[in-house]
Amino acid sequence: MAQNGLETNGNTKPREAATSPYASTDPNSNVNNFKIIESTLREGEQFANAFFTTEKKVEIAKALDDIGVDYLELTSPAASEQSRNDCTVISNLGLKAKILTHVRCHMDDAKLAIDTGVDGLDVVIGTSSFLREFSHGKDMDYITKQAIEVITFIKSKGLEVRFSTEDSFRSDLVDLLSIYKAVDKIGVNRVGIADTVGCANPRQVYELVKTLRSVVSCDIECHFHNDTGCAIANAYAALEAGATHIDTSVLGIGERNGITPLGGLLARMYTADKEYVTKKYDLTKIREVENIVAEAVEVTVPFNNYITGYCAFTHKAGIHAKAILNNPSTYEILNPTDFGVTRYVSIGHRLTGWNAVKNRIEQLDLDLTDEDAKAVTAKIKQLADVRPLSLDDVDILLRSYHHAKADGKHTTLLGTIEKPEHITSISTEASA
Amino acid sequence: MAQNGLETNGNTKPREAATSPYASTDPNSNVNNFKIIESTLREGEQFANAFFTTEKKVEIAKALDDIGVDYLELTSPAASEQSRNDCTVISNLGLKAKILTHVRCHMDDAKLAIDTGVDGLDVVIGTSSFLREFSHGKDMDYITKQAIEVITFIKSKGLEVRFSTEDSFRSDLVDLLSIYKAVDKIGVNRVGIADTVGCANPRQVYELVKTLRSVVSCDIECHFHNDTGCAIANAYAALEAGATHIDTSVLGIGERNGITPLGGLLARMYTADKEYVTKKYDLTKIREVENIVAEAVEVTVPFNNYITGYCAFTHKAGIHAKAILNNPSTYEILNPTDFGVTRYVSIGHRLTGWNAVKNRIEQLDLDLTDEDAKAVTAKIKQLADVRPLSLDDVDILLRSYHHAKADGKHTTLLGTIEKPEHITSISTEASA
Repeated sequence: MAQNGLETNGNTKPREAATSPYASTDPNSNVNNFKIIESTLREGEQFANAFFTTEKKVEIAKALDDIGVDYLELTSPAASEQSRNDCTVISNLGLKAKILTHVRCHMDDAKLAIDTGVDGLDVVIGTSSFLREFSHGKDMDYITKQAIEVITFIKSKGLEVRFSTEDSFRSDLVDLLSIYKAVDKIGVNRVGIADTVGCANPRQVYELVKTLRSVVSCDIECHFHNDTGCAIANAYAALEAGATHIDTSVLGIGERNGITPLGGLLARMYTADKEYVTKKYDLTKIREVENIVAEAVEVTVPFNNYITGYCAFTHKAGIHAKAILNNPSTYEILNPTDFGVTRYVSIGHRLTGWNAVKNRIEQLDLDLTDEDAKAVTAKIKQLADVRPLSLDDVDILLRSYHHAKADGKHTTLLGTIEKPEHITSISTEASA
Repeated sequence: MAQNGLETNGNTKPREAATSPYASTDPNSNVNNFKIIESTLREGEQFANAFFTTEKKVEIAKALDDIGVDYLELTSPAASEQSRNDCTVISNLGLKAKILTHVRCHMDDAKLAIDTGVDGLDVVIGTSSFLREFSHGKDMDYITKQAIEVITFIKSKGLEVRFSTEDSFRSDLVDLLSIYKAVDKIGVNRVGIADTVGCANPRQVYELVKTLRSVVSCDIECHFHNDTGCAIANAYAALEAGATHIDTSVLGIGERNGITPLGGLLARMYTADKEYVTKKYDLTKIREVENIVAEAVEVTVPFNNYITGYCAFTHKAGIHAKAILNNPSTYEILNPTDFGVTRYVSIGHRLTGWNAVKNRIEQLDLDLTDEDAKAVTAKIKQLADVRPLSLDDVDILLRSYHHAKADGKHTTLLGTIEKPEHITSISTEASA
């Protein structure tokens, strides 16, 4: 629902209060004109449980490209031989997205990276202690000089170049602006700021980006960690203030509890400008890439995940408290159809039979037949006699069965799953 | 890390850039003076999978009271006989927290609620369509009159009273302020605003709360849904603008993907004012209440959950990308010890043996012995031969074993768990 300023007209038509009068009208706002730098293959690799093979990276890169993200950011080729190889492989996939990678502010790293064939380089100042020492004029000059040298070289090779710092929100403001101004002057494409610790709040972000917007003419990219729950909100505030690019990762995976999640950001921006988001990005592909990544890093999509979590659109029909509140279907700010998901009816611990399980199979977009659904349902009921299953248990069962089926096996997490009449080991109260 | 304004002193000491110069210094800010209204037993009951018995509500209420939340909000006694009984039971527990419940703006509901013994009532305007119709003077007068009557009655009985609207951010501003002003005038303790659909953004919230702060003299309570990922950030912005109370629920459970989560809000506020938060609330009890609620509603604590998610403090030692960034331990804005959790070392799918599992048992605060850890580890390894386990799988296994052990049984989600030498059914490659 777009949030417009109040409109007045010449006649006596009553004022419509359906849209909010509290919307900001920032002249610099890029809320309806932003780009995504998808960093699952860089920040995401720093997630505790991420061990991506080259094949998996290619699969993820293609899935992200299907969504229409503007850039893919990869781990530095200087990090390992595999990282270097991955940069080359992914750069040669012919994706629509532009391929970026990170380098330290060194000519050797820059040359190595350019040779892989990426479209652009992100030059990062190594440590924020450098920034803290900027009161010593000499260090400042040295860093600026080196940055200029590396950036100029990269640009001479025709690549896009971003310059960024880490821990920007706890760095000295003047020094930060000074170096950004210097690199802007030599034509860097983009500067980046990062809330490396996840401590920034939205209004603070707005102020810094607004200030930076007045200092540089180039694009502004932002990277927000989510330790204190503000990564999505910070991204939004940054765009309001004039930032142009936001870093994301699938399910927000990254160092610690991660960064701005791709799905969550799209939900937020969809609310602000549905037309821009739905035209630019294929929102129906979010669930698929989340499934791929969740499986690859071996986590469960959180029950409350934006859009794709099982309860994102769940309505608890008939619950008493509803008597007090309006019918919530009036209040769905996100239309599930636009995201390719259905309104999910809760299975809970009171299973209603294989139809409910089939419903969940469809929700998860798994390739299982009705026969499969019945077999899994029988197993679920047997297990539920022992201990009530959570939705996550059901999900794990279903994915496991799907996985095994794809491998041509019948052995799964929970032992052999067979047609109901062959169940031997546990309770015989199975019914499909 | 507190964010102070710049400090200057008379001598020539270099300026310290360790704290951010971007902090706001709002005169109305209650960032270091806020209260929590814990609504797991009201909003949380609207979560898809919540089916709380009275005993479970008592357990949750006590666990929340141990944390030191200021209020507990319960489902309306008018909703069902059980809800009514629960209000009475919980009001008689002798908790430190004050007990609140919801009522519609009707004398009958108010009387019913007062009789249960709660400390305060939240009077809610039933539908925002009423607000939209406020341009018709008659409706406005009628609503205001009724609100005044009910509020006056509640106050005459010595109870605390809050008046609130729903979908406040899409309501007509003038009508909203008019009715709040009217109830403030007759001495309501608190007014409440709600982002019922989860569409509000932080700067918008700040503006509305700031405006409201200038209109009413009473306290201001805020309720934020998290559909677009801004519930925590909105709460923070609201407090910056002068709000006094924030609604939360454990793990944020509630309608759809829920509201401001208790743990996440505390992480955010801890970052802003560590002393206030650590003195007022027992942060080491967050994990326990999250475990209780997660088990009760049958979900898994999300892998990336604030503070207690398995990766909240995870560092991936030796990962190549670290060569580019600083050592992340420098960047822990949340000290895990303050929250009673340990820095978690990733097990991943490459299990290192029973010690890693034991580490996870401690992380989850489960009552299992070394022998138990070895037995579960053997099972995990057998299953991992079939399909790699996710951390969530391991967690489910451990909780299941713990559960069964507490019940005196040995049957669990994964069939019988026995001492390693008795394992019969699957692969014999077990080793503890």
